[in-house]
Amino acid sequence: MMKSTLALILAAGIFAIACVFTVVTGQAHILNTSVDVPHYDSAGRLVLPDDYREWVFLSAGLDMNYSDSPPVEGRHIFGNVFVPRTAYRAFKKNGVWPDKTILILEDRMGATKGSINKTGQFQTDIAGIEAHVKDLSRFKDGWGFFAFDGTIPADLIDTNSSCYSCHLEHAAVDTTFVQFYPTLLPVAKKLNTLSSSYRLVAERDAGQ
Amino acid sequence: MMKSTLALILAAGIFAIACVFTVVTGQAHILNTSVDVPHYDSAGRLVLPDDYREWVFLSAGLDMNYSDSPPVEGRHIFGNVFVPRTAYRAFKKNGVWPDKTILILEDRMGATKGSINKTGQFQTDIAGIEAHVKDLSRFKDGWGFFAFDGTIPADLIDTNSSCYSCHLEHAAVDTTFVQFYPTLLPVAKKLNTLSSSYRLVAERDAGQ
Repeated sequence: MMKSTLALILAAGIFAIACVFTVVTGQAHILNTSVDVPHYDSAGRLVLPDDYREWVFLSAGLDMNYSDSPPVEGRHIFGNVFVPRTAYRAFKKNGVWPDKTILILEDRMGATKGSINKTGQFQTDIAGIEAHVKDLSRFKDGWGFFAFDGTIPADLIDTNSSCYSCHLEHAAVDTTFVQFYPTLLPVAKKLNTLSSSYRLVAERDAGQ
Repeated sequence: MMKSTLALILAAGIFAIACVFTVVTGQAHILNTSVDVPHYDSAGRLVLPDDYREWVFLSAGLDMNYSDSPPVEGRHIFGNVFVPRTAYRAFKKNGVWPDKTILILEDRMGATKGSINKTGQFQTDIAGIEAHVKDLSRFKDGWGFFAFDGTIPADLIDTNSSCYSCHLEHAAVDTTFVQFYPTLLPVAKKLNTLSSSYRLVAERDAGQ
């Protein structure tokens, strides 16, 4: 009786430990596939996330230009923006980006001639990759910009560069161009997280 | 002694059951976020997957046209294509789509005027949603096309319609336009899963 009781306790204990192990490894699996935070090398350069193409797609533009420089004849560039799923879900819930959010802008060449396509543009090779990273304890004003050369880790772009001041001045939410992300702009409007500078310009434009 | 032994067995048992519950619900969470298969209503219509915007993005085109019909003046349409992560990973591994794959084509209006943008196009409202579904036991030749009206479940598009014959004739892999998905075309080339009709045309075009 005593032996069988001990065996029962032992079996239940082993089963419980096995369950805990499964929960922990299962949880790790969830984390690996759904949580992505910035990684830096020993020199402080941002490592290009190798799985960003499996992140949530925010939008794509073609030949967008914020300056008055004329477009380059015959050259077309798509810009695809991706964000980790956990950051996307946090934004959908709160209307702001959580700390450690990474937005990846992947530029791809556009082409018209190919297979049966006759007009318009489709995407081909990568033309450049940039990152916009929220890391409150690391960057002045909370965000850093990086431009990758291939897959080599990237240095922080100088905080005096125009990308910082332009995003600070014109971005709809938290220095990010949510005005161009059609699934998120309604969230920011509803949760009232639009920047005051963006709201002022949008109201002026709507009144024109 | 007997009481404390029973209490111990009971506690271990409850803990084990709690662990099993956590494993099962954890597993369900993984399934919900990473496995997506077609769902049909009782009338056999395809249900629009409500989370397709969190799927893997294959590519976006602008104003692509396979016919000789002229573009509509001043109207621009982006086409974004999404596929579940499990199907994407299966394609990356095998160069073909697994059974139950769903590709969603989301059309969005393009706009130039907005915020600080000066040229080019960015995406705004949804203009239409279509699905291309691989369901070997359900559809003739394995694939079915659907066009959604809002979020209402969609009837199968008649298998005599031109979308079936055009995809069968021109698609790079397994009736899908992988030639326009820049992360997957190299996979199909490497794994030698390009259709013979696509290969012939691509070789002819390359020789021109």
